[in-house]
Amino acid sequence: MKALRFDGEKLIFENSFAKPVTPAGEALIRVLMAGICNTDIEITKGYMGFTGIPGHEFVGIVEEINAEDQSLLGKRVVGDINCACGNPDCEYCAQNLGRHCTNRTTLGIANRNGAFAEYLTLPVENLLVVPESVSNQTATLCEPLAAGFEILEQVNFSANDEVLIVGDGKLGLLINHAVSTTAAKITHVGKHPDKLELAKANGSQVVLLDQMPQKQYDIVIEATGSASGFNFSLLHTKPRGILVLKSTIASSQNIDMTSVVVNEITVVGSRCGLFQPAIDYLATGVDLSSIISDVFPFDKALEAFEAAKTKGAMKVMLSF
Amino acid sequence: MKALRFDGEKLIFENSFAKPVTPAGEALIRVLMAGICNTDIEITKGYMGFTGIPGHEFVGIVEEINAEDQSLLGKRVVGDINCACGNPDCEYCAQNLGRHCTNRTTLGIANRNGAFAEYLTLPVENLLVVPESVSNQTATLCEPLAAGFEILEQVNFSANDEVLIVGDGKLGLLINHAVSTTAAKITHVGKHPDKLELAKANGSQVVLLDQMPQKQYDIVIEATGSASGFNFSLLHTKPRGILVLKSTIASSQNIDMTSVVVNEITVVGSRCGLFQPAIDYLATGVDLSSIISDVFPFDKALEAFEAAKTKGAMKVMLSF
Repeated sequence: MKALRFDGEKLIFENSFAKPVTPAGEALIRVLMAGICNTDIEITKGYMGFTGIPGHEFVGIVEEINAEDQSLLGKRVVGDINCACGNPDCEYCAQNLGRHCTNRTTLGIANRNGAFAEYLTLPVENLLVVPESVSNQTATLCEPLAAGFEILEQVNFSANDEVLIVGDGKLGLLINHAVSTTAAKITHVGKHPDKLELAKANGSQVVLLDQMPQKQYDIVIEATGSASGFNFSLLHTKPRGILVLKSTIASSQNIDMTSVVVNEITVVGSRCGLFQPAIDYLATGVDLSSIISDVFPFDKALEAFEAAKTKGAMKVMLSF
Repeated sequence: MKALRFDGEKLIFENSFAKPVTPAGEALIRVLMAGICNTDIEITKGYMGFTGIPGHEFVGIVEEINAEDQSLLGKRVVGDINCACGNPDCEYCAQNLGRHCTNRTTLGIANRNGAFAEYLTLPVENLLVVPESVSNQTATLCEPLAAGFEILEQVNFSANDEVLIVGDGKLGLLINHAVSTTAAKITHVGKHPDKLELAKANGSQVVLLDQMPQKQYDIVIEATGSASGFNFSLLHTKPRGILVLKSTIASSQNIDMTSVVVNEITVVGSRCGLFQPAIDYLATGVDLSSIISDVFPFDKALEAFEAAKTKGAMKVMLSF
């Protein structure tokens, strides 16, 4: 099969990579569409020390199931990227927190080949059927949207809460969609008037970074991925407020933790989420097309990666 | 009156500093005993840009009250160091969170002279009477002990929780006392076998830093005040666990926030606490004398400061 492989130094487009053999309990999925995430770009810089096929945002068709229950055969699915050990003695699996299982593999990120290939395999229990009304492009946004909904699992939003979302990239805008399902009042700050329009259309107040007032918020969500974004977010978090740290900052950063202590701020690290709330939201017919900047045929995957690296790029997708 | 003053560069022992005039709503307190905190030492290095009389841990006698209610006159008291604006429109004062009031002054730390003097003033509502059974030395520990009890206001401890306290200095050991009032299982890690004995006597498991196993805990409390302490604590916090950041790290630190995100750790900044739980605990007759390393007469305050700066020093007190 065709696959995009990272050898530890560079991405290589392979024309005849071995098609995966479906392990027991898993399904073979023919990929229809895959999205390029900033994490994939970080992986090509050495993040997680990953080698193999990256890619963890996808939608595909189940072509084979190595398990008794064949009910998902032929179905269009998305899939949770964390593959837990499932051992009843595992304290995370026992709490339905397989995405923190210490023995997990993660699609295209840790010890498991990912979605930048014609085929991938995932455990059957990781798969969710995509409603027919949801397009392939929209379904591919399910994984990063689930990461947005994860915040709602970790933090309580009430009607009186004033929320600031920092960063108007694709992650920030998907978070905006997730938080907009709560009653909280959202302000979205970013650098790009055109991107902020999407947040505005979604009912948020918007403000350009260089026009940001000194105001502080009950809940601030950092989605810029930069150290300056963290310090900016801290400055705009009320004493006893919550700062949600959403983007992985790959290297050590100079962060002033003094104000975290003095102002008793709670910093909540937030990563992958459950897919179901994201699918339910997508099934309402919301239009996320403006978050997608480009779709490349898979043969042009290397070109697509370059496009995804462009400053200010939105979601770049690969079509199979 | 005699007072120890910081002029922005050095500490000066004054023999005839003007005795404070008691403002409306406040009480004049004759200091009996005061404790030297690491924050005081940080102040002499420029922390908070404070100049004036430092000192915020004290016990004293109320000698004058500039208010109608004179009931505290002659009483032995300790006092909450944060003096809130009390304005009903202040969102922090309205929530009984005067210690986060943005217009507050703080005894010996921000815009208010402190306890390293024969007299200080504080608002009457900040004062709490010390039970007769509690000695002056023990009562002086009320403020840092309240900071330990603050953690119990912010974080829920249950019987199944495994807690790691990092740092066996005076703050760490006072935190041990506060957390030992919960049902959680405490492990205390530090560098000093003699200090860890105090935690052991308090019912905790203890472990020397260089013998620390790779184990991770539900709740980790960082009380070392060093950047390496933060990273060590992070390493020993379970995914989805809580890291309580208790000590003010004065300068920016190289902190790797990646694992906060990947492991969805919640970092809780924690500072001053309410005094009542601390007084109630002291009134049970607990012996904290081993946390006090030395008591100097106030005339030798400069010498006492040097003793407090000594590596490994426990609480140094000033007797008036």
